[in-house]
Formats: sequence, C-alpha cells, structure tokens
Amino acid sequence: MTKITGFDTFDVRFPTSRTLDGSDAMNAAPDYSAAYLVIRTDAPGPGTGAELTGHGYTFTIGRGNDVQLAAIRALEPFLAGQDLDETLADLGGLYRRLVTDSPLHWLGPACGVIHMATGAVLNACWDLAARRAGKPLWLLLASMSPDQLADLVDFRYLADALTRDEAVGLLERGRGGLDERVAALRADGYPAYSTAPGWLGYSDERLAALCAEAVAQGFTQIKLKVGASLAGDVRRLAIARETVGEATGIAIDANQVWDVPTAIAWVGELTPFRPAWIEEPTSPDDILGTAAIRRGVRPVRVASGEHVANRVMFKQLLQAGAIDVMQIDACRVAGVNENIANLLLAAKFGVPVCPHAGGVGLCELVQHLSMFDYVAVSGTPRMIEWIDHLHEHFAVPAVVSGGRYRPPEAPGASTAMLPGSVAEYSYPSGAAWQGSGVR
Amino acid sequence: MTKITGFDTFDVRFPTSRTLDGSDAMNAAPDYSAAYLVIRTDAPGPGTGAELTGHGYTFTIGRGNDVQLAAIRALEPFLAGQDLDETLADLGGLYRRLVTDSPLHWLGPACGVIHMATGAVLNACWDLAARRAGKPLWLLLASMSPDQLADLVDFRYLADALTRDEAVGLLERGRGGLDERVAALRADGYPAYSTAPGWLGYSDERLAALCAEAVAQGFTQIKLKVGASLAGDVRRLAIARETVGEATGIAIDANQVWDVPTAIAWVGELTPFRPAWIEEPTSPDDILGTAAIRRGVRPVRVASGEHVANRVMFKQLLQAGAIDVMQIDACRVAGVNENIANLLLAAKFGVPVCPHAGGVGLCELVQHLSMFDYVAVSGTPRMIEWIDHLHEHFAVPAVVSGGRYRPPEAPGASTAMLPGSVAEYSYPSGAAWQGSGVR
Repeated sequence: MTKITGFDTFDVRFPTSRTLDGSDAMNAAPDYSAAYLVIRTDAPGPGTGAELTGHGYTFTIGRGNDVQLAAIRALEPFLAGQDLDETLADLGGLYRRLVTDSPLHWLGPACGVIHMATGAVLNACWDLAARRAGKPLWLLLASMSPDQLADLVDFRYLADALTRDEAVGLLERGRGGLDERVAALRADGYPAYSTAPGWLGYSDERLAALCAEAVAQGFTQIKLKVGASLAGDVRRLAIARETVGEATGIAIDANQVWDVPTAIAWVGELTPFRPAWIEEPTSPDDILGTAAIRRGVRPVRVASGEHVANRVMFKQLLQAGAIDVMQIDACRVAGVNENIANLLLAAKFGVPVCPHAGGVGLCELVQHLSMFDYVAVSGTPRMIEWIDHLHEHFAVPAVVSGGRYRPPEAPGASTAMLPGSVAEYSYPSGAAWQGSGVR
Repeated sequence: MTKITGFDTFDVRFPTSRTLDGSDAMNAAPDYSAAYLVIRTDAPGPGTGAELTGHGYTFTIGRGNDVQLAAIRALEPFLAGQDLDETLADLGGLYRRLVTDSPLHWLGPACGVIHMATGAVLNACWDLAARRAGKPLWLLLASMSPDQLADLVDFRYLADALTRDEAVGLLERGRGGLDERVAALRADGYPAYSTAPGWLGYSDERLAALCAEAVAQGFTQIKLKVGASLAGDVRRLAIARETVGEATGIAIDANQVWDVPTAIAWVGELTPFRPAWIEEPTSPDDILGTAAIRRGVRPVRVASGEHVANRVMFKQLLQAGAIDVMQIDACRVAGVNENIANLLLAAKFGVPVCPHAGGVGLCELVQHLSMFDYVAVSGTPRMIEWIDHLHEHFAVPAVVSGGRYRPPEAPGASTAMLPGSVAEYSYPSGAAWQGSGVR
C-alpha cells in the first residue's frame, strides 16, 4: 500500500514588475507568482530512488502569495496519510469532501483564496493520477468513460441547466471520432493566440514590433489590453490593425475596469477596429451587467471567465446569454473537476471555450483541458491564450510553434516546476530577491 | 500627531460543536470562531495610561480561522505608521486603496478570505472612528452628511442600478424626521427575531420548549433550520406552529442545501405552515436560480445575503427580483463601507434589510447598521436576527429585551472582546482548549 505522505509548499515570485510584462488596466506592476504545492507520496517515482510527487499551484500577482499558501496548507489534513491509489481512484469524492467541508465552505463559499487552494490541491492530485497512469492529463481524461467523468463533477446547483444524464449524453456524443481527433491533435497541434504585443506598459514602437512578430510566428489572433485611456486605445488599436492587417484577429481586454454604461460607450469607440472580442468589460461577478454589455456592443463579441469563481457563476453567464466566449482558468476554480463541469456547461449551451492562460504555469496546465475538450467534449478546436514567458521554469514547458500548442506527451499535468527555479525565486530568501526591496 | 502603530491578531475559537449550538443543514458541528483584530494607536484611550484601540473580526466556524488571520495581517502595511486622524477622516479612501490593490484583488476578487479580511480591517477602523468621536457607530453614521456618506461608497459597477447622485438623494430624503426616529429608537428599541429554537441538532422537546420561551420573551418571529429531511422539517414545523400560534412568524432557513427544482418542491411541502420567508434556498451565488425559486414558491417570501460576497452580487439580486428580504452580514463584505452601499441599493429597490446575525459578535456589530438604516436611510425599522450566546465575551454586549435590541450608547462599534475571553479561547493555547483534541 502506498500513501500520500504530506505537502511541501513554496512561495515562488518572479520580479516581473521590473519590466512591466503583464501590465494592464487593473494590474500596473505585477510580480507573477505561484503558491506552489508538491504533494509527496511513498510510491516509486520515475527516477532512481525518487518518490512520486504531484504538483499544483495558484497563480497570484505577488502580495498575498503567502496567504494563498496558508490556505493550501490548511487542506493537508484531508490528504496526508491517505491511501494513494484509493484517493486517485475517486477524485470526485475528494473534491466533494473538500468543497463541502463546512468550516472551509464558510471561508468562500466556493470563491477566492480557499477555492483556489482547493484547485491547487486537486490539480496536484490530477498530476499524480496522470503520472501514475503514465499518460499526459489530456489523454488520461479522454480515456475515461462518460460515467467516470460525470462522477468527477459536482452537479449540485446545476440541475436547472445541466443534469448528470445530460452530461453523460454529451460525453457519449464526444466518443464519436475521438481517435481521429487525437490523431489530428498530435499532427496539427491546437490553435493559440498571442497576448505578447498588448501590455499597457509597452511603447507604441514595441507594440508594432511585437504585432509584426506575432503574425510572422503564425498567430492568427493577438490581444491588446485596453481601458486605461480611450485616446491611447484608439491609437494603439490603429497601430495594431495597420500592422497585422485584416486576416489577423485583435481581441481586446479591459480587465474589469468599466461599469456597464462606460463599457458600452468605450467599446463603441473601438468597434471600427473590428475587435475579435471584448474581454472582462466589467466586474466578473456582474452577470446581468455583462449580458447588458453584450447586447450593447454588438457585433463585438463578449468574453469573460478568468476571474469567474465557480461553475454556478459560469452557469448563469450562459443562462443569461452574457458571453460569446467562455474563458476558463486552470487555477481559479476547484481544479480539473470543476473545469470539467465548466466544459460540459459550455457544450450544453454551445459556447466556445477559449481559456485564459499566461501567468505562471497557466498555459502548461490549461492546454490539457482544452485538448480534452476538443477530443472528447466539444469536438472542435478553439483557441488558447499564449504568452511566452516564464515557461523555462517548468520541467515540461508548454510548446507553441507555428501559432499552435503542441500536445504534451509526458505523463502528468505539466505542472512540475524545476527545483532550481523554485529555489532561485523563493520569496524572500531566493537569489532573485537578494538585494531587492522586499515588497 | 497620533499614529496607527500596528495590528495584534488573535485566533479565538469557542468549542460550540460540543453542544450542537449552531448546527444546520450545511454546518453539522461548527466551532464558532473569530479571527480577531486589534488595531493599536498611540492616541490616548479611555482608561488611565491606555492607548486607543479599534476592534474588528471575521466570524468563521473553526478550521481555517488561521488562514483568515493571515489575510488580515497581510493588510497591516496599509495602515501601520499612518496618521490616525487623517486615516479616520477618509475611510472611503482607505476602502478604495484596499479593494483596488491589484495583488489583493487577484486573491478575490471581492470575495472570500481576502474580502472578509478587508471587512475586519475597515470595521476596526470604524470602531476607532466612533470611539474617537465619542459616539456609538450608528449615531456617528447618522450624524454624517449625505455627501460624506456617499464618499464612503465605491460606486464602481453600480452605475446601472444606483448613481452617486441617486444615493445622495436617498440620504437627503433620510434626513427628514431623523431626530424623531433617533428618539423613537432610544425609547422603543429595534425589533429582533430569535433563531434560538431552530437548530437542527436539537430534540423535538427542546424545540418546543425554546419556541414557547421565545414567545414568552416577546419575540414576534422565530426561525427554524430546514433542509436535512423533509419528514423532519414537516414534523418540526408542525411542532413550532402549534407552539407559537398564528401571531408569531416562523422563518425557515435551508443554508444553501437545495438546487432550484428541489427548493421549489420542498418549500411547497412546507407552505401549509405559513413560513415568514425561506432563507438561502440555494447557492448564494445563484442570482438567476434564486429568482426562479422566488417565482416558484409564492406566496412564501425569499431571503438571502449572509453569504453574498459583495455589492455587485446584491445589486443583481435586486435587479433580478430574486429576494423579498435582503440579509446583510456585518463581516462578510468589505465592512461598514460596502454595507452602506448595500443599504442604499436596498432603499433604491424598496427591499427591507433584515441582517444575518448570531455567530461571534455579528449581533454586536450589525445592530449599528440596522439602526443607521432605520434612522437615516429607509426610515422604517425591520428585524435583526438574535441568538443569545457568546455575548458575554464582549465588552459592550448587544442587549435584547422584550424581543427588541436596545441601541448601544457606548462609543464604538461594540466590537471589543474581553481580554480574558480572548486569552481563554485562544486556539490552541487557551485554557478552553487544553485537554481537548486539537482540531
């Protein structure tokens, strides 16, 4: 019998604010960070003498990464000492135990720090499960039966939009042609779009150069941050449109800065530049407001989801007809389990899922969910965000070439960070932070 | 010049699970707890040689209280070293600095652990402000001008429901007859209802005895927890209705256990007992679901709010016509500031506010908000929940007699706990926890 032996946690912060990578209308100077979790076991791992470990994290932007780690550590008693294979055989059960624990539920409910901690723990368990199965996570999920997948979902609060029977039906439909889609994925990869050109802190010259570079690299869509200054947005969108031409999509992202009337007016001014979508035009909690904005900015499409707390909120965004594009995030909700619910809800409502990525390790993890969605749920490849930084700190980095993600084949969820990177960027003791003002 | 010198924080837990006080359909065995904050200053306090302190807390039900404290401590750098009177003169500015700090925003946004920590800090500042002004909080708020009060509110995301001008108009309307209402409040108190009889863990005999006692004490409404077993609910409601007669209201509270169709069916079975309202029939995030339930359970009224994360969610519950009764909580949202927004939204939509209370210190704090609502906003007294336990640990405990809250007259927000109680119930070192299994 093999056991889960405990958690190791690490406060990993990258000093990205020094270069203004990641700057947008809400986040002026983020230090991209990970509240990083390693679940230890006494099962044999891949290397000689090494034990099997599972890896998960919450992405944060610096301050409070330690609070996030405290929440992750609060979940250790649910796993330490448990039988490894029994745990991995019922990750739906573990998910339900974590989200129905009443003291932890009180701290959300189902949102914020405690919910993201649940996500980190479940994702680390999925990394363990995929390593134990010798498969990349996307393929492990695609290998599970409709009933097994439905067992992973918490259908509480979904009955008015999606029942378990409907979910099983959607997954059975997804079996048809699955092998062909797996082969196509391996041959062609999965579409990506690039956010690299669009950070607000970049100069116009850098914006133009990065737009041209994105097109040359094969991307068919780029994204620009907007919402700080209307004149600036008009100027930057004009530069971007002139640079990329008409064949390349330009999504725009306001990162929640507007209220409803402002969003409608501002997007109206940008509509002549034919944006592919407007992302997070207002509070991610504002379902009715987002629906009103969608009605008000047609024909521009509306996207949201990176800060949407849980499946109940996604359910309502779909019920209210608030979004054209659903942007799941791998780390904000309760991990793979809740994201399977989100994918099934999107499939039920016929809305495409184009995940939020970037950050620290979000591309690595979320690609597995999109690839599973393509081969086993929606049957259609959509588009995953791509930002080419910080991947070098991962043992199996996400790979994009020719504007497409290449499906990972290594066992696991691609969530393991390199031990050297963890040490160097540990806050505040790591070498990267020595001599810096501690924030 | 006087300064805020820092935070002291305490993990205070009461072993209430030993008696099943507080047991409901979601929370089987809570240990009522407070993540307790004392803000220190170098200003002179009321006692000889003592310095002025402000007191705030997040109510939790045990596990994770330490995570909540970590979040509160993460806010100390925003206050330590600041000028006391400048800070207190612009608590709207402090509120906006806390909720727009982008790394902290990422950890919510505006929900869960980090948002409740913001609430604890702001509430402690309001306790300081009221002590410094020599007034109870409700009277301090009622003494502020409409413009000063509007400055405390963050109107971002509210424009489609409530503008600043409309808020000022509502507050100006509230000036009329204010002195008469203050006098009436002091003479007559403010209505309370009692949840003491209704915990799920109690026997039928205890339920009946406590129902009779509540009527004898002068309460005109009681509340019963429901949702664990339909047969049990029918039996318990029959006992309660028979005991209290027709003149006493019986609210019922499902604590989020149902999905939409289950809620409608279950409440239908309980409608013959004429419940005063059904509280939290489903997920607090499910605005559209709650609206569907409200349509489906008429004539039973629907109440929600104790787990509603922020003003944007309350705005939508009101816009969607989802609730007949709005239940603010003093500690879940961003403190007094966000609750002023919530009271103004309710006034705009003409929905009565009947706060959630009980817990640890929720009665003490929320009474100030309801009394302010009565005298300066809505002009009408509603009803505050009352549960008679744990008040003895507060320096100025809430007082209910004849079924009515008596307005506090001591300066402050009634949030200071007795130092002896803090020491005895500190977890896990306090005397109350010695010899117990540490949870």
